[in-house]
Amino acid sequence: MPVNLSAPQAVDLFTVPGVRIGVTEAGIRKANRKDLTLVLIDEGSSVSGVFTQNRFCAAPVQVCREHLALSAGIRAMLINTGNANAGTGEDGLSRARATCEALAAQLSLSPSQILPFSTGVIMETLPVDRITAGLPSVIASAHAASGGEQWLQAAQGIMTTDTVAKAFSKQIVLDGQTISITGISKGAGMIRPNMATMLGFIATDANVAQALMPALSLALAEASFNRVTVDGDTSTNDSLVIIATNKAAHAPITSLDSAAGAVLFAAMRDIAQKLAQAIVRDGEGATKFIAIKVEGGKTGAECRKVAYAIAHSPLVKTAFFASDPNLGRILAAVGYAGIDDLDQTGIDLYLDDVHVAVKGGRNPDYREEQGQHVMKQSEITVRVLLGRGDASDTVWTCDFSHEYVTINADYRS
Amino acid sequence: MPVNLSAPQAVDLFTVPGVRIGVTEAGIRKANRKDLTLVLIDEGSSVSGVFTQNRFCAAPVQVCREHLALSAGIRAMLINTGNANAGTGEDGLSRARATCEALAAQLSLSPSQILPFSTGVIMETLPVDRITAGLPSVIASAHAASGGEQWLQAAQGIMTTDTVAKAFSKQIVLDGQTISITGISKGAGMIRPNMATMLGFIATDANVAQALMPALSLALAEASFNRVTVDGDTSTNDSLVIIATNKAAHAPITSLDSAAGAVLFAAMRDIAQKLAQAIVRDGEGATKFIAIKVEGGKTGAECRKVAYAIAHSPLVKTAFFASDPNLGRILAAVGYAGIDDLDQTGIDLYLDDVHVAVKGGRNPDYREEQGQHVMKQSEITVRVLLGRGDASDTVWTCDFSHEYVTINADYRS
Repeated sequence: MPVNLSAPQAVDLFTVPGVRIGVTEAGIRKANRKDLTLVLIDEGSSVSGVFTQNRFCAAPVQVCREHLALSAGIRAMLINTGNANAGTGEDGLSRARATCEALAAQLSLSPSQILPFSTGVIMETLPVDRITAGLPSVIASAHAASGGEQWLQAAQGIMTTDTVAKAFSKQIVLDGQTISITGISKGAGMIRPNMATMLGFIATDANVAQALMPALSLALAEASFNRVTVDGDTSTNDSLVIIATNKAAHAPITSLDSAAGAVLFAAMRDIAQKLAQAIVRDGEGATKFIAIKVEGGKTGAECRKVAYAIAHSPLVKTAFFASDPNLGRILAAVGYAGIDDLDQTGIDLYLDDVHVAVKGGRNPDYREEQGQHVMKQSEITVRVLLGRGDASDTVWTCDFSHEYVTINADYRS
Repeated sequence: MPVNLSAPQAVDLFTVPGVRIGVTEAGIRKANRKDLTLVLIDEGSSVSGVFTQNRFCAAPVQVCREHLALSAGIRAMLINTGNANAGTGEDGLSRARATCEALAAQLSLSPSQILPFSTGVIMETLPVDRITAGLPSVIASAHAASGGEQWLQAAQGIMTTDTVAKAFSKQIVLDGQTISITGISKGAGMIRPNMATMLGFIATDANVAQALMPALSLALAEASFNRVTVDGDTSTNDSLVIIATNKAAHAPITSLDSAAGAVLFAAMRDIAQKLAQAIVRDGEGATKFIAIKVEGGKTGAECRKVAYAIAHSPLVKTAFFASDPNLGRILAAVGYAGIDDLDQTGIDLYLDDVHVAVKGGRNPDYREEQGQHVMKQSEITVRVLLGRGDASDTVWTCDFSHEYVTINADYRS
C-alpha cells in the first residue's frame, strides 16, 4: 500500500495543448497489459531531458541523448514496459534504433525526432517485432485522445512494480494566459536517481525558449527526482523529459530569473516534487514516508552525503518499519557518511519536534515514548544538525519492509 | 542458520601461552547471559589494534586509541555486550574510563594498560556499576582458565545477534618452535568494517617486535575484515586487536618480508579471513555466502568500488536470496559504482564458471538454467571483468532475506 498516495483521477488532470497520448497492448512481456505508450508532440515545441548517470545506461537512453543532441525537433516519445533494453550491448542499440525507424516511417518523421524509452527487466532482448506490430494501434489511440483520460492511461501504461499510477497537474496564469502543467512518473524499486528517475514526463503549453530547456530540466531534476531514494540502486534507464509546447500566447520565457520564469519554475517544481515523492510513497514495500533534513553543514554536498547515508542504511530503514526508535542507528550512519573531519560532539538529532540527541549524546530530557510516538506515524521528518556551517539539504525516502524482499525476490517469476 | 559454518569445539582451539580468559554474567542488559569477558595478557607482550573509521566512534574505541598510543604495555582487555557505549557523548567517555580504572585497581595495573570494548545497542547509558560488580567474578574466572574452553567461552561471551560463536585456531612451526594462533570474532549486522569489525581478537605466542605490530594488524585487517560486508553499515565500535605474547624462543620477527614474518603473516591471515568470513556466513538472515571478484581494473581501489556496489545492492542481494539469476541487477550496480569513464562494452560477467555477459551484453550461449543452477548453491562466486587493466580485488558478502528484516525490526524488543 502506498503511503498517503491515492490513484489520480482523469478529471483532475489538465490536457496540455500540443500533446496527444495513446496506449495499447503490444504483448511485450505479458498479455492483456497496456505496455506501449506513444506521446505525440506538436511541431514548434521545446523539449529537453536529463538521464541516468549509470555507466551501464540502457540502449534507449543512449539513443535519446543522440536524438536530443541532433536538435531536429522532437515530435514523439515511444515508451515500452516489460523490457528495459539495458545490458544488451550493440544488439540492444540496433533494436532501439529500429523501433524509432518503424515509428518514424508511419508518422512521416525523421527517426531522430523520436525519443525511445524502455523499462522492465534488464538483460533481455527487446522484441522489436511486437512493438512494431503495436504501432498502428497506439497511433490510432493517440489521434483519438481527448481530456485528462489520456494522461491517466499513460501513467498506468508506464507502470512496472508500481502499485498506483502517478500523475499530477496544475494550472497557473502567465501574462493573463492560463497555462497547464501535467506530469506523470513511474518507479518503485531500483530508485536512487542520479539525474532523474525512470520515468518522468512533464508537459506544459507555456512558451519556453528551447535554449532555456536544458537548464530548466536540470533544475527541476535537482529539486525533485535527484532528492529521492528507495533502495540506493541507480537504474540503467532513469529519464526525465520536459516538454513545452509553446501554444500559449505570452512572450517566450528565456530566463528562470525573469518574473514569468520564476512563476513557471515554481509551478513545475511543485509537480516534479509531487511526482518524485510519489515514487517514494509507492516505494517497494514502503509503509512510511520519511523526509531527512540535514542542516548546519559546510556545503550542500556534505549535507546530501549524510542524508543519503541515513536514507540508504538498511538498519535505519528496518527500524522505521518496526516503529522502533533505535536512533543510535541514525547516529552511526551520520558517522560513516564520509565527512572526515566531523566532530560528533557538535551533532544534534530531532525526530519531528522531539529533541533526541544533544552534542552527540542522548538528550537527558528525551523519553523513549516520545520517539516511539513519532516513529508510529506514516510521515516522519528526521532532522540532523551538523553544527559546522549554514548549508542544508533534504532527501526523501521510505522504510524497508518484508514486502520489499518479497517483491524483489519474486519480481521476474 | 549460518551458511556452512558450525560452532567451534573447545578441543580444536589451541591455548596461547601468555593469554588467559574469563567470562561472567554481569546482567548488563539481560539476566542469565555471559556478557562480560576479560582477557589477561602477560607482561612483555606486543599488542596493537585497528579501529572503526566511523566519525561517531564509540567511547571505548576512543579510549583504546588513547591507551595504545601511551605504550604503557597493554595487560588486559575488558569486553561487554548488551550496550555499545556509542552516541553517549562525554558521559560515555567517563564511563569507559571508569571501567578501566576499576579493573586497574583490582589488577594493580595502570588504567592505560587496559583496553575496553563494548558492543550492543547504541545511545544507551553504560551501567558501570554492574560491570564493576562483575569484576571479581570475571577475574577469578580468568585465573582459573585452562585449555581451549576459555577461548570458546570468550567467543560465546562476545556474541550479540550472532547465531553461532566464531573461533579459529592453528599451529605452525617457526625456527623449530611450535607456535599457536587463536582468534575469535563477533558480528552479524551493522557490518561493513572500515578498519576491522566489531570485534576481532587474534593472539599468538610468536615473538613479534612491538614496532612491527601496527603494520601487522593493518595488513591483517586489509586482507580480511576490511573485505567483508553484510549490510553496508559501518559500526561505531569495530575493533580488531592483535596480541603476540612473545613466549616462543625464536628470534623476534621485525619484518613481514622476512622468512619467519611471511610464514607467520600467512598463518594469521588465514585465521583472520576465516573469522571475517564467519561473520558473513552468520550475517543477519544470510542463506548464501557470496565472493565477489572484480578483475581487470585500473586500480585495486576501483575494483573494490565495483565489488562493494554489487555487495550492497538490495536488488542483487534479494535476487541471490530468491536464487533468481536476475543478473542485469549486477550489471546495473557495476554501472553506478562510480567509475566515471567505465566503458560498458568492455565488461564480462561470470557466475562461478558460467559466462553470463560478454562485452556488456548477454552471452548468446548463456542459458537461464545455467545461471539458475549456480544461484541455487549456498556458495557462489561472482566474477566481473572490467577490461581496463591488471588490478583485482575480492569482497565477501551474503544475501538479503526476510530474516534480515525480522531480526532488525525486532532487535531491541
